[in-house]
Amino acid sequence: MELLSLSILGSSSAVPLSDRSPSAQFLQIGKEYFLLDCGEGTQVKLRQHRIGFSRLKHIMISHLHGDHFYGLVPLLSTLQLLDRHAPLYLYGPKKLEVAIRQQLDITDAHISFPLHFKVLDTERKDLIYESEHLKVHSFPLRHGVDCFGFHFEEKPLARKMRKDVLEELSIPVAEIRKIKAGADWHDQKGKVYPNAHLTLEAPAPFSYAYCTDTLPVKHLHRYFSEPDLFYHEATFLSKDAQRAKQTQHSTAAQAAEIAEICKAKQLLIGHFSVRYKSFQELLEEAKLTFPNTAIALEGYRFSLDRKTRDLQIEKENEYR
Amino acid sequence: MELLSLSILGSSSAVPLSDRSPSAQFLQIGKEYFLLDCGEGTQVKLRQHRIGFSRLKHIMISHLHGDHFYGLVPLLSTLQLLDRHAPLYLYGPKKLEVAIRQQLDITDAHISFPLHFKVLDTERKDLIYESEHLKVHSFPLRHGVDCFGFHFEEKPLARKMRKDVLEELSIPVAEIRKIKAGADWHDQKGKVYPNAHLTLEAPAPFSYAYCTDTLPVKHLHRYFSEPDLFYHEATFLSKDAQRAKQTQHSTAAQAAEIAEICKAKQLLIGHFSVRYKSFQELLEEAKLTFPNTAIALEGYRFSLDRKTRDLQIEKENEYR
Repeated sequence: MELLSLSILGSSSAVPLSDRSPSAQFLQIGKEYFLLDCGEGTQVKLRQHRIGFSRLKHIMISHLHGDHFYGLVPLLSTLQLLDRHAPLYLYGPKKLEVAIRQQLDITDAHISFPLHFKVLDTERKDLIYESEHLKVHSFPLRHGVDCFGFHFEEKPLARKMRKDVLEELSIPVAEIRKIKAGADWHDQKGKVYPNAHLTLEAPAPFSYAYCTDTLPVKHLHRYFSEPDLFYHEATFLSKDAQRAKQTQHSTAAQAAEIAEICKAKQLLIGHFSVRYKSFQELLEEAKLTFPNTAIALEGYRFSLDRKTRDLQIEKENEYR
Repeated sequence: MELLSLSILGSSSAVPLSDRSPSAQFLQIGKEYFLLDCGEGTQVKLRQHRIGFSRLKHIMISHLHGDHFYGLVPLLSTLQLLDRHAPLYLYGPKKLEVAIRQQLDITDAHISFPLHFKVLDTERKDLIYESEHLKVHSFPLRHGVDCFGFHFEEKPLARKMRKDVLEELSIPVAEIRKIKAGADWHDQKGKVYPNAHLTLEAPAPFSYAYCTDTLPVKHLHRYFSEPDLFYHEATFLSKDAQRAKQTQHSTAAQAAEIAEICKAKQLLIGHFSVRYKSFQELLEEAKLTFPNTAIALEGYRFSLDRKTRDLQIEKENEYR
């Protein structure tokens, strides 16, 4: 599947309502999967989105406020009951491990699959995961407690062979990898075919950035730029900017400003205060600065197709 | 409201599904309210059942397995965010307080309303709450960790004045309380009217017993008897009795047997293993021994009217 897909399991702020769950997102890039934050009830949301628990391998926790990780220990307990054996990789603030161990100890629960903890760097951008296709960095945000954003980016993709040339010149299969990587090709007579003649431009790699909870960080573009999709919290409207500052959150206008500074292609906003009954005003405020904004609506899956790069929005199967 | 009412917020065992939530019940007897256990997501279930958070005053936690208390700290955090001032009384095993304090500390959360902890007695039946109208006792169950059942019983109610006699004899208002409490009455001429002539039998007080999780405890009737409503876990069918024993749970047949021993009037069973896709077989198994059995269905409210004592079952408003 040639896509980037983001399922919004929850995008409310600290007080959950019947239809507003605390933070949790499930990200797929290519064939790799990441759970971002894990508020209370995330395991049930995963089921409602029909996301198999076997896809859980990497879990990033932005910070240790309850609405971002109270669902983690219950999820681990369930994985244990379901007889998981595969290791699980957890990325978060320093105290995440002790938070988990304490809760497991007190409930007399034993986790028998391997748990690996990566403590995030509070000072600088840090490469926290790398695979054949992907790099993930964490970077510090500003929220009063240790708090982190995450940037997921594919590595540059191989150029594509031109099929017509491939057939015309009878290039041996063994050579194709080198050519895709950028090499020219010499035929048996010694004639040189420059790479640009043999291949097509590689599709642009996908990238996604996740920033919650935070005051606007004006230098965020030093950590990443031009994300295809950019989630930034927008807890308040500008009219409540004072409250945003006190609680170390952002307004919708500020989220939009940061998206612009980072040259994001598409902004998603969420983590709204329950004081707002509708999200329309928040969306409109962000759009004034950054027109390409959408609401990170709980129960929806956002995806980008490799070719078209259009944002698709799809409602998950009705709950139950 | 002259009733006993029990809302089933969750009645599943340890692995939650989309439509099966972990243990939590909300009990009303007369004008007093109790939350019994608090699995993950209980605060959202309270909202879905339209139970106002101001009714939360007493929370009983049967034991410290996650499916019975992972929702408690998130609920406390929400109460704090909602600016609660009223004290909250928590009843549970010895380690409950440290479990809560640890989680609050790590999330940098401060609870400013008073939290009172009552450590339950692991050896014997214990009076843990008493009001003008009600007594609540805890008693030990058998589940490998400290685990408790709870028995709620109204105190004997005052006898009712016969309205016809009240009017005929012109009894002064000041005398009525004494007569309701059982006194005879002398009129101005010294004529004695025996209490039985003046009053009607008091309605029988309500009682409710809650027992989860536990192996069958054959001596449970020493702690209470003849509950109007009796909830007993029935995690397994008899064909899985071996598994029930290993995990220190009960079968539906065992729950029914205990209900019979305790002379319960109505049995509710729940805490079913997710291995059972339907509850029908569990219900049938219990009914073989104890015909007056019902499933403690999540999303339903069970109530008894003072006069008729009939069990009413009502579906809560459809979620969302």
